[in-house]
Amino acid sequence: MSDVDNKELDRMLQKAFEASTKIYQERGFQRRVGFGKRPALISVDLANAWTRPGNPFTCDQEAMDKEIIPGMQRLLEACRANGHPVIHVTTAYEITDRNAGFTDMGLWHCKIPIDVVDLKNKDLWAIDSRIAPIEGEYTMLKKRASSFHGTGLAGLLRAAGVDTILVTGVTATACVRTTICDGLADGFRTIAVRECIGDRVPGAVAWNLYDIDAKFADVHSVDECVDYLNKVNDTASRIAAE
Amino acid sequence: MSDVDNKELDRMLQKAFEASTKIYQERGFQRRVGFGKRPALISVDLANAWTRPGNPFTCDQEAMDKEIIPGMQRLLEACRANGHPVIHVTTAYEITDRNAGFTDMGLWHCKIPIDVVDLKNKDLWAIDSRIAPIEGEYTMLKKRASSFHGTGLAGLLRAAGVDTILVTGVTATACVRTTICDGLADGFRTIAVRECIGDRVPGAVAWNLYDIDAKFADVHSVDECVDYLNKVNDTASRIAAE
Amino acid sequence: MSDVDNKELDRMLQKAFEASTKIYQERGFQRRVGFGKRPALISVDLANAWTRPGNPFTCDQEAMDKEIIPGMQRLLEACRANGHPVIHVTTAYEITDRNAGFTDMGLWHCKIPIDVVDLKNKDLWAIDSRIAPIEGEYTMLKKRASSFHGTGLAGLLRAAGVDTILVTGVTATACVRTTICDGLADGFRTIAVRECIGDRVPGAVAWNLYDIDAKFADVHSVDECVDYLNKVNDTASRIAAE
Amino acid sequence: MSDVDNKELDRMLQKAFEASTKIYQERGFQRRVGFGKRPALISVDLANAWTRPGNPFTCDQEAMDKEIIPGMQRLLEACRANGHPVIHVTTAYEITDRNAGFTDMGLWHCKIPIDVVDLKNKDLWAIDSRIAPIEGEYTMLKKRASSFHGTGLAGLLRAAGVDTILVTGVTATACVRTTICDGLADGFRTIAVRECIGDRVPGAVAWNLYDIDAKFADVHSVDECVDYLNKVNDTASRIAAE
Repeated sequence: MSDVDNKELDRMLQKAFEASTKIYQERGFQRRVGFGKRPALISVDLANAWTRPGNPFTCDQEAMDKEIIPGMQRLLEACRANGHPVIHVTTAYEITDRNAGFTDMGLWHCKIPIDVVDLKNKDLWAIDSRIAPIEGEYTMLKKRASSFHGTGLAGLLRAAGVDTILVTGVTATACVRTTICDGLADGFRTIAVRECIGDRVPGAVAWNLYDIDAKFADVHSVDECVDYLNKVNDTASRIAAE
Repeated sequence: MSDVDNKELDRMLQKAFEASTKIYQERGFQRRVGFGKRPALISVDLANAWTRPGNPFTCDQEAMDKEIIPGMQRLLEACRANGHPVIHVTTAYEITDRNAGFTDMGLWHCKIPIDVVDLKNKDLWAIDSRIAPIEGEYTMLKKRASSFHGTGLAGLLRAAGVDTILVTGVTATACVRTTICDGLADGFRTIAVRECIGDRVPGAVAWNLYDIDAKFADVHSVDECVDYLNKVNDTASRIAAE
Repeated sequence: MSDVDNKELDRMLQKAFEASTKIYQERGFQRRVGFGKRPALISVDLANAWTRPGNPFTCDQEAMDKEIIPGMQRLLEACRANGHPVIHVTTAYEITDRNAGFTDMGLWHCKIPIDVVDLKNKDLWAIDSRIAPIEGEYTMLKKRASSFHGTGLAGLLRAAGVDTILVTGVTATACVRTTICDGLADGFRTIAVRECIGDRVPGAVAWNLYDIDAKFADVHSVDECVDYLNKVNDTASRIAAE
Repeated sequence: MSDVDNKELDRMLQKAFEASTKIYQERGFQRRVGFGKRPALISVDLANAWTRPGNPFTCDQEAMDKEIIPGMQRLLEACRANGHPVIHVTTAYEITDRNAGFTDMGLWHCKIPIDVVDLKNKDLWAIDSRIAPIEGEYTMLKKRASSFHGTGLAGLLRAAGVDTILVTGVTATACVRTTICDGLADGFRTIAVRECIGDRVPGAVAWNLYDIDAKFADVHSVDECVDYLNKVNDTASRIAAE
């Protein structure tokens, strides 16, 4: 990311966001959807092809190692301590021959190099070992950007009584953003966890989180989310015990 | 199936169907959707837990061994000879503990014993070896009755240019019927292959195929389908070669 | 329905169901999904083209006038008294020319006469005046059999906190059955209200309710459902008031 | 949009995009999905509440009047001359009371002011008269951002044999972007028509089209699209006439 001055870019983006915020505020956008009563953590594509070096899908490594993974570890700890469902989402394909008459890549390989994520090479799509799933946590294989489109996730979350999703992972531009847009449309209160969302090109996280916060989800810090995950359980337990 | 006289049941069902057909014909139901130009074979749950003895899901064994499997072998041969896509669909679950806070069974285990089909026991959900997938054929894992609901199948078929689906498998009551209803709704010409659709309780195949043919798909014999699969390719090849 | 002896048919169907039930019970099917905590009533296609004489879609008139409509009136009263959401679903089409290059009928007019339900003729698709929607009840226009497929219903119900759907209407064979199958798959506890589900051909209600109860929903009487609708509110109120 | 220097913003965005493009190119992103053989035009939310002054949803008026509407007129002319399907999409709600127990707004009114688009006020959601639908063109009412999520659009397009969608309308940030992401996932070749996509905040069109072109659709000019719409018909006619 050396060809753009990131500080100058951030400064310019902040100016653009301030101008946009003025318009949005005057018109009643940027409302808060709020936290609900039964959360689940949806962690998107934090698998080796995205979290580790050397793959076309590798994301910004500094953000990954210093913010996303440590933030995820704290979120996982809070979910596990309080019995909140955790869904680890990953992406891989059975038929990666671009010339096949039928492929589970659909048409997406016509835009991006998903043909590298071969289902036979589990190292690529296994969840990063630093945040590995434990017994009882669901690892869901998806084929598209959204964790909801073309999967049963919405139905499974409803069946479990979940009303709120905390979304983390990569990339802001694609799989995280579409997961959030679909999550709200599928009837869930959507929370984007700021420090746990990454990308691989400059400005993409900032811009996409800005759009998301304006229209599709509330953006909150890891601290705020951990605090919520710990508190919401207390209330639920208290009610259940009455 | 010893407690009901199957011949008497069939006779009675035929009388009921004749009365229904009279009503449907007068009112313009039972139309033909027809075969399209680019077919795919969708084979539903012909995996060991359904095709072999000894499982709660085991289907009628005589129909399975004498009609469904041999019919499927002929359909597969025709698809493979002519390059038509084949999708083998099966069903299994990662979290089969009924008391789990979140499970990929959703709520279906509250109605039927899907908790026996554990993803860790591949023997259960592997496609029957007599009709095993070959390289380039997609094996799709689903969680629900329909092969379309909560899966990316419709999008993948559209991406491959498919306009017609030939549906086979088990059971008529559940996974085959919902797959057909969704297939039509998702924009595909739907063909139910008569001899290749089974169930495990008396009358279920006859009744469900009757409903399906009246409203959701054309029911055709294996002979008719094999003939179509061989012919449609000729036309497509001719056009492509011009 | 004069060409079939309905009593003889019913007797035969009961024998078939008894044989099936024995198999299902031995194998762990026919479980109870149960009533949840926040219900909604989903009333499918109880619009004039289905409830009144003279249309290809007209259903059995005796059942409609003596059972379905009176049962619906009791369910509506219980929902309205207790603040439970009611969704009235109907079906109509904007482009009913079968030869159009694009039509919102999709391919369904290739099987059944949906081209008669023209959106411009509101009399056809308006909800029957005996069970007319009141302010605050949502009337949803669908294009397909299922009330869930190709609509936003699942997301809207989840957003409203609904976990249980009571399904009524016509026909058992098509729109009611697909709505129930999808409702369960979308994560809702599904209840089929026995006396409030109809069809237009002999045996169809009995057979389809039998299949539904075995695999996709609990079948309950209007009495049981009204009782539940009145009781569930008490509990919810009590909790809210604490 | 007076608080941000748009020229300076554009210059900075171009620098960011250049840095991103370098990364994307090295890694095999930004591929071309290409035009297919049977297109449809999907025009998103070009209804009065978005195209005319005075509504919270009003978009940038100069772009609307000088680029989007004139561009749409050219696209419509080409579609109509060649018999390509046109889908006009709009958004409105039946239950706009934010405190209702059930509303067809789902949860979206918790983020943006969709409660202003009341279905009873047709002026708000009617398609702009400058690009009004003609007989045979489908006007589809949606409830969410995406034209595909919670609608039957994908199935209807497949039923009509469509394999390519040209997407126009507003806003880039929300309804256009989600429509494009879903369109590709649903199996259609996705084309974003550059001059016919708008928004209401600075930089949003540029940034979102950049993301879209990198991963979800090919961005083309009106000229290129009109040319394609005229040419593709010739080929189709020729084949049909043989």
